[in-house]
Amino acid sequence: MYSIKKLLQDGKNIQGEITLKGWVRTFRSNRFIALNDGSTIDNLQVVVDFENTDPELLKRITTGAAIEVKGRLVESQGKGQNVELQASNISILGDSNPEEYPIQPKKHSLEFLRENAHLRVRSSTFSAVMRVRSTLAFAIHKYFQDNGFFYVNTPIITGSDAEGAGEMFRVTTLDAKNPPLNENGEVDYKKDFFGRETNLTVSGQLEGETFAMALGKIYTFGPTFRAENSNTSRHLAEFWMIEPEMAFYDLIDNMNLAEDFIKYVLQYTLEVRRDDLEFLNKRFLEEEKTKPQNERSTMSLIEKLEFVIHNQFKRVSYTEAIDILKNSNHNKKKKFQYPVNEWGVDLQSEHERYLVEKHFECPVILYDYPANIKAFYMRLNEDGKTVRAMDILFPGIGEIVGGSQREERYDVLKQKIADLHMDEATLWWYLDLRKFGTAVHSGFGLGFERLVLFATGMTNIRDVIPYPRTPQSAEF
Amino acid sequence: MYSIKKLLQDGKNIQGEITLKGWVRTFRSNRFIALNDGSTIDNLQVVVDFENTDPELLKRITTGAAIEVKGRLVESQGKGQNVELQASNISILGDSNPEEYPIQPKKHSLEFLRENAHLRVRSSTFSAVMRVRSTLAFAIHKYFQDNGFFYVNTPIITGSDAEGAGEMFRVTTLDAKNPPLNENGEVDYKKDFFGRETNLTVSGQLEGETFAMALGKIYTFGPTFRAENSNTSRHLAEFWMIEPEMAFYDLIDNMNLAEDFIKYVLQYTLEVRRDDLEFLNKRFLEEEKTKPQNERSTMSLIEKLEFVIHNQFKRVSYTEAIDILKNSNHNKKKKFQYPVNEWGVDLQSEHERYLVEKHFECPVILYDYPANIKAFYMRLNEDGKTVRAMDILFPGIGEIVGGSQREERYDVLKQKIADLHMDEATLWWYLDLRKFGTAVHSGFGLGFERLVLFATGMTNIRDVIPYPRTPQSAEF
Repeated sequence: MYSIKKLLQDGKNIQGEITLKGWVRTFRSNRFIALNDGSTIDNLQVVVDFENTDPELLKRITTGAAIEVKGRLVESQGKGQNVELQASNISILGDSNPEEYPIQPKKHSLEFLRENAHLRVRSSTFSAVMRVRSTLAFAIHKYFQDNGFFYVNTPIITGSDAEGAGEMFRVTTLDAKNPPLNENGEVDYKKDFFGRETNLTVSGQLEGETFAMALGKIYTFGPTFRAENSNTSRHLAEFWMIEPEMAFYDLIDNMNLAEDFIKYVLQYTLEVRRDDLEFLNKRFLEEEKTKPQNERSTMSLIEKLEFVIHNQFKRVSYTEAIDILKNSNHNKKKKFQYPVNEWGVDLQSEHERYLVEKHFECPVILYDYPANIKAFYMRLNEDGKTVRAMDILFPGIGEIVGGSQREERYDVLKQKIADLHMDEATLWWYLDLRKFGTAVHSGFGLGFERLVLFATGMTNIRDVIPYPRTPQSAEF
Repeated sequence: MYSIKKLLQDGKNIQGEITLKGWVRTFRSNRFIALNDGSTIDNLQVVVDFENTDPELLKRITTGAAIEVKGRLVESQGKGQNVELQASNISILGDSNPEEYPIQPKKHSLEFLRENAHLRVRSSTFSAVMRVRSTLAFAIHKYFQDNGFFYVNTPIITGSDAEGAGEMFRVTTLDAKNPPLNENGEVDYKKDFFGRETNLTVSGQLEGETFAMALGKIYTFGPTFRAENSNTSRHLAEFWMIEPEMAFYDLIDNMNLAEDFIKYVLQYTLEVRRDDLEFLNKRFLEEEKTKPQNERSTMSLIEKLEFVIHNQFKRVSYTEAIDILKNSNHNKKKKFQYPVNEWGVDLQSEHERYLVEKHFECPVILYDYPANIKAFYMRLNEDGKTVRAMDILFPGIGEIVGGSQREERYDVLKQKIADLHMDEATLWWYLDLRKFGTAVHSGFGLGFERLVLFATGMTNIRDVIPYPRTPQSAEF
């Protein structure tokens, strides 16, 4: 069976009667069916010979109905398509009662569609977003595999809160109401499924490092979790992360890789999913029109993608960034909620946005952060107060990548773990990497949904993942 | 920096001094370093000018040490390699104390290596297995993307025990010792993170179907979980599954796809990872030699892969299979632990193995199973007693694929849910698919680790995943 994508591309070369299955998007004038099968954003126009078609059947050609059409492709008289299908026979595979079907051919609010997440992918916007998501995912695998990286599935259930990156979800099979207690009156996790307390992973990095120190260059691409009660348009409790990790890479190599990688996957997706992105581009421009003039983007969605692909990311040290922020008019006029007064403060999202959107007006790589606002595993610089960390900040998105050169020195890392009162016993294997054949190495994490947000021009992260998990919400 | 893979392939074209980093596998005669950087199973021979090298440095060239070597590539005098590196300078990046380093150049037991899962990937066997795993994963993505499928990330945390496929892990942030109780004295999941009881998914199929009924052809590739207390060489608590789902596919289309798909990914991997598979082939043959003559495989690992790629899978209905089993000498001589006496019994692993390994001696697709031993969502046949299910059975592995045509009829599905006393309220969205534009559709699930087992010739599933999760074990 042909896909509509194929028919619209090569229709002129396809002779004879064909059979097609898909869903009705619209049916107008008892004559023209816009048929979609999910293979492309575009519909195929099916022309119905309504005078010779049973009126009862015509009534059942409604938005959402699944139909089978037999007919011949002919050159289209209408605009916007090369071919259309002259139907000789139509049969209804599955009805769709117009009184009940939620996804009618009109503009629905994104909130309404979220409540119907099982059907929203039948809309043009969400089908485009989800196809773009799929292509981005493949571009990621392709980039790494073409460049000698190996894909590693780090564990989802983990016994170690390695990063201390945030609150975690407990994974358990213990009786919820009456858990077994040990002699100290505490929950006896020895009786739990894994014989210990276990959680959902917040990052595959530490396990990823163990593989990089054997296979050289690896990447993960899997789900990660944060049990944080943040109901924002940028946070999910369950999201997908890509975490490459490379032996013998220093921070500069790491930045170069991250920049090249992001440009590649956007370029690839722009080529392969051009039709969906043009649709999302139109949508983006319409959304912009509803904003006050001074809040509108100076670029269209596709222009933003092209801009990232063709411009160098600006590399700025934390120290330079603090100077810029401290001396900015914005700061002097006290327009930041968190004023920037001294070196050492953590950057807030408002500061990142100022740097990216107002000051540099391009993606920015910030590096060499103060040690005490960054994670324990980051390589301490010779100055003793900064670490070889880097964050990549994107316009409209904020942090899209966070990475670092890893501390490769056994004694320094061991001391850091002690200073932070972390549990060295659960990190014995991580320390082993520094004991046996250690070397400079680096890696980063990229939040997949933030990349999809950027590529699609959507503004709420719940709209770029099939079934979002957020506080108080795990429907479907 | 060149990878060793590249040097061994194109070394003759590389002139001038190069720099290389990697880990010492062995160092013999104070002269020959076997250097590995993870890019390939093969080591590069580095020749040390020991007379002009500091003896203190020579002592530090030990198995597992990370070193940097500068030198020139020259044609190798030795066997088994085209080029070797004449070192002009060697420096130690990270030592590896031979008294302490667990991965010495000798045969370690797989059990010992499992306890050192963070280092085992530095061994030849595990690095080969993990590279093959990576390539298989990419081949899977490539097959689907090349064939018009979209990748879908179905949720990991789920509120619905959709399939009833097995025991589940609870995901919670409630206080473990003193959970909040509701007015009935039961655990008050309304106060849990998601406002309801949630578990780790056992399958993405049902959510996958919602996307197939919009995008046409989709696949998932993500982690799934079973909280079953089975300590076997074929079961993991956390494993990766691939689940394609296709609108307008019936069971035959489904079988055709599964067979074509498996052949493609094995063929691709055989081409791309030939060197690793040849290594694993040798390992396989050595392992076979330790078995009694009558238990040895008649084929080598590579021959088994070639056999699957080039032979049609045998398609056999459940009813035929039962006849074969019932009338087999094996059954008559009461050699089955579970004798096969009547139509309707579930097939045990011993029966599957008999069919595949003794009777047909090739991969087998069993189909049309009794309805009451299969899941609720499978399409009921017109006979009213069998369903359009199919399992693919592989020699040495057993079930590698389980799939079915899905029940597309609203009333039949609703009745089935009622008959099984399942909770219709949690499946409203799944029923909606049959209410709005329903159509024949099908899909299957393939356990990724079982495929990796088959492709690598390993025999314990814990040895083909980076960090296995099994009862009482979630180390690392």
